[in-house]
Amino acid sequence: MATGKILVAQGGGPTAVINQSLVGVVLEARRFGNVERIYGAHHGVRGIIHEDFVDLTRETSHNLEQVAATPGSALGSTRDKPDLKYCQQIFEVLRAHGIGHFFYIGGNDSSDTVRIVSEQAAQAGYPLRCMHIPKTIDNDLVANDHTPGFPSAARFVAQAFAGANLDNAALPGVYVAVVMGRHAGFLTAASALGKKFPDDGPHLIYLPERNFSIDSFLSDVKAMHERHGRCVVAVSEGIHDASGEPMLVRLAKQVEHDAHGNVQLSGSGALADLLCEEIKAKLGIKRVRGDTFGYLQRSFIGCVSDVDAREAREVGEKAVQFAMWGDRDGSVAIKRTGFYSADYELLPLSTVAGKTRVMDDAFIAPSGSDVTDAFRLYLRPLLGSGMPDAYRLRPAPVDKVLGASG
Amino acid sequence: MATGKILVAQGGGPTAVINQSLVGVVLEARRFGNVERIYGAHHGVRGIIHEDFVDLTRETSHNLEQVAATPGSALGSTRDKPDLKYCQQIFEVLRAHGIGHFFYIGGNDSSDTVRIVSEQAAQAGYPLRCMHIPKTIDNDLVANDHTPGFPSAARFVAQAFAGANLDNAALPGVYVAVVMGRHAGFLTAASALGKKFPDDGPHLIYLPERNFSIDSFLSDVKAMHERHGRCVVAVSEGIHDASGEPMLVRLAKQVEHDAHGNVQLSGSGALADLLCEEIKAKLGIKRVRGDTFGYLQRSFIGCVSDVDAREAREVGEKAVQFAMWGDRDGSVAIKRTGFYSADYELLPLSTVAGKTRVMDDAFIAPSGSDVTDAFRLYLRPLLGSGMPDAYRLRPAPVDKVLGASG
Repeated sequence: MATGKILVAQGGGPTAVINQSLVGVVLEARRFGNVERIYGAHHGVRGIIHEDFVDLTRETSHNLEQVAATPGSALGSTRDKPDLKYCQQIFEVLRAHGIGHFFYIGGNDSSDTVRIVSEQAAQAGYPLRCMHIPKTIDNDLVANDHTPGFPSAARFVAQAFAGANLDNAALPGVYVAVVMGRHAGFLTAASALGKKFPDDGPHLIYLPERNFSIDSFLSDVKAMHERHGRCVVAVSEGIHDASGEPMLVRLAKQVEHDAHGNVQLSGSGALADLLCEEIKAKLGIKRVRGDTFGYLQRSFIGCVSDVDAREAREVGEKAVQFAMWGDRDGSVAIKRTGFYSADYELLPLSTVAGKTRVMDDAFIAPSGSDVTDAFRLYLRPLLGSGMPDAYRLRPAPVDKVLGASG
Repeated sequence: MATGKILVAQGGGPTAVINQSLVGVVLEARRFGNVERIYGAHHGVRGIIHEDFVDLTRETSHNLEQVAATPGSALGSTRDKPDLKYCQQIFEVLRAHGIGHFFYIGGNDSSDTVRIVSEQAAQAGYPLRCMHIPKTIDNDLVANDHTPGFPSAARFVAQAFAGANLDNAALPGVYVAVVMGRHAGFLTAASALGKKFPDDGPHLIYLPERNFSIDSFLSDVKAMHERHGRCVVAVSEGIHDASGEPMLVRLAKQVEHDAHGNVQLSGSGALADLLCEEIKAKLGIKRVRGDTFGYLQRSFIGCVSDVDAREAREVGEKAVQFAMWGDRDGSVAIKRTGFYSADYELLPLSTVAGKTRVMDDAFIAPSGSDVTDAFRLYLRPLLGSGMPDAYRLRPAPVDKVLGASG
């Protein structure tokens, strides 16, 4: 039997609901008599190797509930991607503190860390249950219907485009917004859920699952602008050409001497600006505006899917139950069981670890610049209840008197 | 007595609640027996000179209520700034259609248009009531306690910074976000309302009311980063040096060959990116991220202050009442009468027209990089009810066993 000390940590980018998973672990674990202490590590694996722990057993359940409803990673996070040596250090610290259960909330890199630590414990014959709890706004974990954090980020993106479309309809022009997602286009595709009326934007959606061509992009924008007198475009930060080179780098080269070539994808408005420059230069459209949703889409407070919040809580609770009642390590995954309901299963760590899921072809329109109804059906229930709605005045034209040219 | 036809239009940038004012005009006007028809002009003054009108009398009150709760300008807007000749055209169209009341919802440019049209009507001896209804997220109308649209945009900015602060605390570094506001810093200052705990960001706030120095900016960031191990900065798009030159242009020159020098302030991520380049280059801080809130802050659907929505509705209603019962033209203004309650007054158009209000010195901290409690007290009630709140885990350190260096 594993010892009665539990360690929980959070890795990778924060989300709107990752603290729900943390609190799910803590409160569920406290129901088990054999659990003496629940430690949290500051800033993920980095905090573990530095023994930077807090005793969550001493926190009130009331404040834990308040923290659960707060975005961001309450324990702090890290971008460290541990190699074997780093994982051996992690294991040594866990053993030194007599940790019997290790819960790591994160994406596919985090699941790989859990896998290696689990192997280290097995080799050392040390009784340790290692559980990976899914989290990522990119929704790119294989064998998961979806991942906690994605639905709330998707809700933000859908609401942002619903509003941007109204803004663009009021003051027509071309609007290009760049959304997070280096390899998987799920979050960018969520922009389609902001669309209500047939002529609403986004009129074009570009995903990293398809090769991006600046020429077809420009002709697509031109066509939509001619049809609607305006054009709203959703672009994934990860769009790349046929050779796999990110468009940010490609365009930064084209636009002479641009300083942005080497900046990372997120945390910069460069891609949106460069695409706007192209549209102005090549299409001669006057009003062209670019936005980059940046960190707002994963950390905006007050835009949470209630479905996401519930599920993020449950993956934490289930991880503890699997650890206490099962006799194997693994990664908790969300399984869709109805329209809409979900259940949870424990996958082998090797199934999830280090792998990246991208959008199924069935979710992407043949044009390559839109999503399918299959995707809308997949995503809509995840956005949760109380999605804001947009309404229009209905046409009731008045005859001209002076007959001035419209 | 003015004739029974009313014309209403929307000008300038859309807001989250400008349609409340539109619907306030329409529904209130329909209570008056002498009102035969209520026309709306598409895309503001541009629609007027093109006689592009819709008959709002034929819209249902139910759908009007739905539209009222929808962000953006339901009639469409325009950036046209009419000169005398343009205003004469407007007046000729109004006369041709037998319009007796003209309501224009917009900012200080719009109020100036209303002023000129009012003068034209007077000179022609044509009975026309001209009313300006305030709207601007910049909050820069003189003689107004605040302007409809600002509180909801301010709420977005406060929530955005509350979330960005949590994100930055989880993955420490420097975060710079650029907020709209060319001359008035109210919206950027609203970032301070996202702060809860003493060490929360924004740690620095730069407003267009003060001259911006890149050197003191860098030393401020350095000091905050040393104190907190991280730094969240709010910057107005309108920051400028002592000569009044916008920093965007200034920095674009400094950063060799940058392509952004001539882009307009909004609709580009350039300023945030350029400030981040400076921090990386001069301070050698590794993790530096920049966001530009762009159009999200004025058009995000689902982030509305209920106080703002009510007041935007009332300024529309009051405009009609002033027009029907009063015998003068004017601009409706919000007057603060309690903590918190508001009333409305009709100001002479000349009082508001074309003038720009900036933040009082009493709202800006002596440091020039923060706001005062007077500003917090001024803004907080406007943000409305149900502001999301952030909570933290309380410290409960665990003793090290291996004593690895923290």
